[in-house]
Amino acid sequence: MWLRVQVFALRDAGDLAENATAYVSLEPCNHYGRTPPCTEALIKAKVKEVVVGMTDPNPMVASKGIEKLRNAGIDVRVGVEEALCLRLNEAYIHRMLTGKAFATLRTTLSMNGIVINQIGSGADQPGGYYSQLAKEYDGVIISSDMAKATTLPISREAGAKQPLYIIIAQEEGSKLHIPFLDEESASSAIVLADSPVTVEPSGVSVSVLDQMNLESVLQLLADRGLCSVLVDFIDDGAGLVSLLKNFQEDKLVQKVVVELSPVWMVSPGLSDLAFGGSQSFPLKNVEHKEVNRTLLLEGYL
Amino acid sequence: MWLRVQVFALRDAGDLAENATAYVSLEPCNHYGRTPPCTEALIKAKVKEVVVGMTDPNPMVASKGIEKLRNAGIDVRVGVEEALCLRLNEAYIHRMLTGKAFATLRTTLSMNGIVINQIGSGADQPGGYYSQLAKEYDGVIISSDMAKATTLPISREAGAKQPLYIIIAQEEGSKLHIPFLDEESASSAIVLADSPVTVEPSGVSVSVLDQMNLESVLQLLADRGLCSVLVDFIDDGAGLVSLLKNFQEDKLVQKVVVELSPVWMVSPGLSDLAFGGSQSFPLKNVEHKEVNRTLLLEGYL
Repeated sequence: MWLRVQVFALRDAGDLAENATAYVSLEPCNHYGRTPPCTEALIKAKVKEVVVGMTDPNPMVASKGIEKLRNAGIDVRVGVEEALCLRLNEAYIHRMLTGKAFATLRTTLSMNGIVINQIGSGADQPGGYYSQLAKEYDGVIISSDMAKATTLPISREAGAKQPLYIIIAQEEGSKLHIPFLDEESASSAIVLADSPVTVEPSGVSVSVLDQMNLESVLQLLADRGLCSVLVDFIDDGAGLVSLLKNFQEDKLVQKVVVELSPVWMVSPGLSDLAFGGSQSFPLKNVEHKEVNRTLLLEGYL
Repeated sequence: MWLRVQVFALRDAGDLAENATAYVSLEPCNHYGRTPPCTEALIKAKVKEVVVGMTDPNPMVASKGIEKLRNAGIDVRVGVEEALCLRLNEAYIHRMLTGKAFATLRTTLSMNGIVINQIGSGADQPGGYYSQLAKEYDGVIISSDMAKATTLPISREAGAKQPLYIIIAQEEGSKLHIPFLDEESASSAIVLADSPVTVEPSGVSVSVLDQMNLESVLQLLADRGLCSVLVDFIDDGAGLVSLLKNFQEDKLVQKVVVELSPVWMVSPGLSDLAFGGSQSFPLKNVEHKEVNRTLLLEGYL
């Protein structure tokens, strides 16, 4: 994503860029895609030096960008803060190397380990972790149950780019209504279904997949240009459960974000879960500390 | 527990106690129990002043201790750091007011919320949280499954008093062998069973309860003089599950200690748990931060 940003930034910088040093986290590209090559922008801007965090794993770039800059008389230093740049570019690199979007699984657990379908207070406000995640990711995968019931995840960060909503509709029936979309915002969501479905509002793109599994979903999203996607697992009903079935075997999820809520789930009867339940109550005076690599939590009932 | 400690400490202090100020977290008792009254010890030691954190909720003490000290010409200040003393004495107070032992539930969860039957590395070493818990609590309730399979929880803190092991044997059959006890250590454990059972080694006290529920267990333990007990829930097989069934309704557990291990449980198939499983693998680069009152965890697969 920074590639385009960089081209625009250099354009905005105007004469200020002349003889300057440009710091880039990834090797500038040398090919025409949706924007002109970044190398061309740097050469035009007459920068004196380019400091490159890491070379581009994309075979279409593959050190050709660096070569082009050097041939234009620009000093190029490569591999500065490489570890940090690997982290910054993890989603892009993953997509280049695997052809699939980088997937992060997000969920909220109660303190007794039950998946709960609400996020922490303030989490979706500006600066809140959920608002920040919605900004960072190109897309958010949610179940059709969630899309029917709750507000779609949006970022409240200033000037945030909103993610694409990828709505997984399994055994959905013939009609799916998404109350939080109107005709105008219909293009901000796509529905991936296992059988033909009519979506309201019209205008939402619908793809019927032969095989509804995480691998084909992440491939499809990479093909559409998404590097990173958040899989928002918010209840253990239907929806995403079967999609996530073998994610760990197939290494389809790269990262997890677990929110631990200071509540305890109440079980009306004995459940298959250790302490399963449908209602929750808050714990008091919850404290935590790190002990070796594990977290220790204490709270009062 | 400090009552006895105090009497012994004053005895050890000898003449040094004369004209000194004694700081006590709880009103000194004025009755003969297993030890002589604490008031008597303070008067004999000729202290000048006693600073009392809080009055004793025990109706047998109920400000009579303070009265006795004042009548003996000792200055008494009451209610200093009372909030802290309430916390220090929480188990004793709970037992006095309810007739039941103060119960803390301890468990270890994977990062996807599954109860796992191992504690974090180092947790049972000196200074480790598990070693410290074993020292703090008068007793530890474990299932007979755990007593058959693993080392009984011990404290490795210097000079630690070891807890009493309370082994819950439900549907146990006629014989229960506890490999980590011998005839010498037999008195460090009691077995509470729902039907007659022969325990090896002999010498372990066995009580057959008419009603095997947490309430009667905690009453029985309070009657035996235990103030605080740790309920160590280490697997979701049998054992403690039914005992803990309604603990939250009946307010039988006062506190929880949850250890969150940086592992992810692998599910061989789709389970009733969100991501149930029998094997685990470690997560990499796990980080956590507190956001409002919830904890946010991130890790790589």
